[in-house]
Amino acid sequence: MSYLDKHVGLYTDQYELTMAQAHFLQGHRQQEAVFDYFFRKTPFDGSYTVFAGLQDLLETLEKFRYDQEDLRYLHSTGFHPDFLEYLRDFRFSGEVYAPPEGSLVFAGEPVVRVEGSIIETQVIETLVLNILNFQSLIATKAARLRQAAGERRSVIDFGLRRAQGLAGIHASKAAVIGGVQSTSNVYAGRLFDIPASGTQAHAWIQSYNDEYRSFAEFAEVFPEKCILLVDTYDTLNSGVPNAIAVAREMESKGQKLFGIRLDSGDHVHFSKQSRKMLDEAGLDYVKIVASNELDEHVIDDILSRGAPIDGFGVGTNLVTGSDDAALDGVYKLCKSAGKPRLKLSENEAKIINPDKKILIRYYRDGQLYADGIALDDEKLESIETLHDPNGEKNDIDVSGLEREIVLGKVMDDGVSRVEKRSVGDIAGDVRTRLAALPEKFKVLRHGPDFPVGVSAGLMELRSRLIREAKNKYGK
Amino acid sequence: MSYLDKHVGLYTDQYELTMAQAHFLQGHRQQEAVFDYFFRKTPFDGSYTVFAGLQDLLETLEKFRYDQEDLRYLHSTGFHPDFLEYLRDFRFSGEVYAPPEGSLVFAGEPVVRVEGSIIETQVIETLVLNILNFQSLIATKAARLRQAAGERRSVIDFGLRRAQGLAGIHASKAAVIGGVQSTSNVYAGRLFDIPASGTQAHAWIQSYNDEYRSFAEFAEVFPEKCILLVDTYDTLNSGVPNAIAVAREMESKGQKLFGIRLDSGDHVHFSKQSRKMLDEAGLDYVKIVASNELDEHVIDDILSRGAPIDGFGVGTNLVTGSDDAALDGVYKLCKSAGKPRLKLSENEAKIINPDKKILIRYYRDGQLYADGIALDDEKLESIETLHDPNGEKNDIDVSGLEREIVLGKVMDDGVSRVEKRSVGDIAGDVRTRLAALPEKFKVLRHGPDFPVGVSAGLMELRSRLIREAKNKYGK
Repeated sequence: MSYLDKHVGLYTDQYELTMAQAHFLQGHRQQEAVFDYFFRKTPFDGSYTVFAGLQDLLETLEKFRYDQEDLRYLHSTGFHPDFLEYLRDFRFSGEVYAPPEGSLVFAGEPVVRVEGSIIETQVIETLVLNILNFQSLIATKAARLRQAAGERRSVIDFGLRRAQGLAGIHASKAAVIGGVQSTSNVYAGRLFDIPASGTQAHAWIQSYNDEYRSFAEFAEVFPEKCILLVDTYDTLNSGVPNAIAVAREMESKGQKLFGIRLDSGDHVHFSKQSRKMLDEAGLDYVKIVASNELDEHVIDDILSRGAPIDGFGVGTNLVTGSDDAALDGVYKLCKSAGKPRLKLSENEAKIINPDKKILIRYYRDGQLYADGIALDDEKLESIETLHDPNGEKNDIDVSGLEREIVLGKVMDDGVSRVEKRSVGDIAGDVRTRLAALPEKFKVLRHGPDFPVGVSAGLMELRSRLIREAKNKYGK
Repeated sequence: MSYLDKHVGLYTDQYELTMAQAHFLQGHRQQEAVFDYFFRKTPFDGSYTVFAGLQDLLETLEKFRYDQEDLRYLHSTGFHPDFLEYLRDFRFSGEVYAPPEGSLVFAGEPVVRVEGSIIETQVIETLVLNILNFQSLIATKAARLRQAAGERRSVIDFGLRRAQGLAGIHASKAAVIGGVQSTSNVYAGRLFDIPASGTQAHAWIQSYNDEYRSFAEFAEVFPEKCILLVDTYDTLNSGVPNAIAVAREMESKGQKLFGIRLDSGDHVHFSKQSRKMLDEAGLDYVKIVASNELDEHVIDDILSRGAPIDGFGVGTNLVTGSDDAALDGVYKLCKSAGKPRLKLSENEAKIINPDKKILIRYYRDGQLYADGIALDDEKLESIETLHDPNGEKNDIDVSGLEREIVLGKVMDDGVSRVEKRSVGDIAGDVRTRLAALPEKFKVLRHGPDFPVGVSAGLMELRSRLIREAKNKYGK
């Protein structure tokens, strides 16, 4: 199953279709266009964003069609018969340029470039934004959780129940891309071949007249990876002692209790006490897992206060990306009919970088150093300095640095050129890439801006176009 | 299409299935259970929640099955062959009690009650939570936006591009249930028969060498309901004057420009100036629509400062429910094997109300007055006073008040008993119900708690069970 299997052409904002019809009826069918996908603000007060959702986007673009039922619906809402006739054979046949899924990307730089006719590039806007904004948001959140938890501890996605409806399906996938080890979400487990895990809820324990009995009978059925939930009645006076009793019985059968889970109260206090009780009972191998409204900041705080916790179950805040509801990605026209296109704005920050562009990543000593945005036809060798288009930050000297072109062609004539990779592989890449990001860009709060600048050539074009537009349209 | 058409049985947390298997292997198949769905906190700092998602839930429960492929997958992850054999013919055959979709519900009260065997009632937990939590969140947000905008102005959902992936589909539906007039989301428009709307983006204007030309050619194609986006270059010096020029030409052809849209800058200033320019040009019928990171508080503020805006396009904050990522609904066992079930907690607020319960709504002078939670077998006539289970608030006197039972049977033996209603009908009900909610519960910030109390019978049972559990499990 891809992201959507049917009615893909309707998964769009109405204005994409009204504009498409207007282009069609005004004879712009052959007009060429280039759009950039980029975001203006890094989520979660951090410095980086993990790029996710590309595979889903490409698969869905390949299925972008209007079937008979779709056309009937559009007809009923007033679209023009000639335009609907055109949509009958419509497919996306453009080119898409993007970094590999799992790359690190930064605010203000072109992350995806789409080229084709003005109609086909326009009408996919909503789809591009819907898929990439969300999955990148969640992958980024997961990467931050992994950072906070550290490599030795596990982070598990518990979010499906609090996910925003069907968003739960791809949230779990993006979470694994970002660095979470497993998910409670069985549906996503099957769909994306990612590990699903889970043991028991309070209801299991409540359904018995006795907590000890409920633990013992569960361990009987699941002696492997058994995790007992210890806070249904009284964590330290009942839950942990009963778990210890069961663990000892398991030992007598040659089995080992895998862990206990704390789901309420002060995690630092309860984990320390539980660890002590388990250790004193000779059960130092029994792990402690914590859950209950966790996020990267809570995990960081708990661990800094010495909580002996081995794994974290994270729900709401992971799968919804709270407390950022969305990555603010946009999709903007930068070239059409052979001309670079600009948009001014009453908000200075909303001015866009015109023309077809490339993104260059510079490295120093194997670590990411800066990203440069240049015009498509600029010579890489000639770029020695990057400038802040808003003129507020210092120039960045990139002369002599190792560099790479970040965006590669991932779709040609509407056909994906990317080999399908497993979620686990992409997750591995994220880990490798984060290792090449300097530590200062990995802080959990007040992440500094990663240096992104524009070439002299782009700077000049942009300034000239702004000047011209202000002369033409301004006071 | 229902919420999910295939693999519904896998749309669950892994622990629902491990518990189900444990119940199965321990011989609990015949054990009866009652679960309550409720939430602890009203979202958005308000007083009420609009209950939404019921129709989707019931339709999806009817499709809850495990097909061959699902069973193969579960086998590969280690589930027991006997349990998988049992799942082969599994369907949900329980009873569901709920208020009509579009009802107002409040924190701490049982909103949905599910009865059946322990396995079937447990295994649907994630599905219940996933659907109801999200759609109720968004319907509530939409109702608040409508309140802020007032009845005379329109609110339009612009959110699909920033929605959390596939959540966008049902977000738009829930938004219309809550009170939004139309959506940009064509997919949801078709699926739920709700009005889709939209005209042009900046890219349309940018794709021309001249703003005036872009407006004129768009109006040529869409003379009806044409809305021109006026902030691409300079709102007051170019956008509005060009829109006025086009409006005059339209008049000469007997057409009327519908509106202009402001998408950046200070909405109060720009709307006042634009209104003045339009009025001076004799175009008092041209409407002003605003968009750009709006929410109910921004709309309230803009209007209180006299902005002459006729419609609002709301995106991210509507479809994600920002800045509450989720309704914190839970699904808790309250009765099984004929016994009321309790859960204590290290957090006092997480103690649940035991046993099978009913919800009674009391009215005074046709307005909502209080909700009461009572045991299923209590006589309504005998309930004169409602108590705060935590003993913090005053008793509520409900003697002699008009009352109704809130939860009705909506599913019997796994079959929906609810007639399918249109989204528009449900939205109408929300409006009627909000009219019966006293004004003090409709403030946008610091909404007071709506009075919810428990009967003396429930109070007594709860206290006794807490005492017994503390005696048994506590220090």
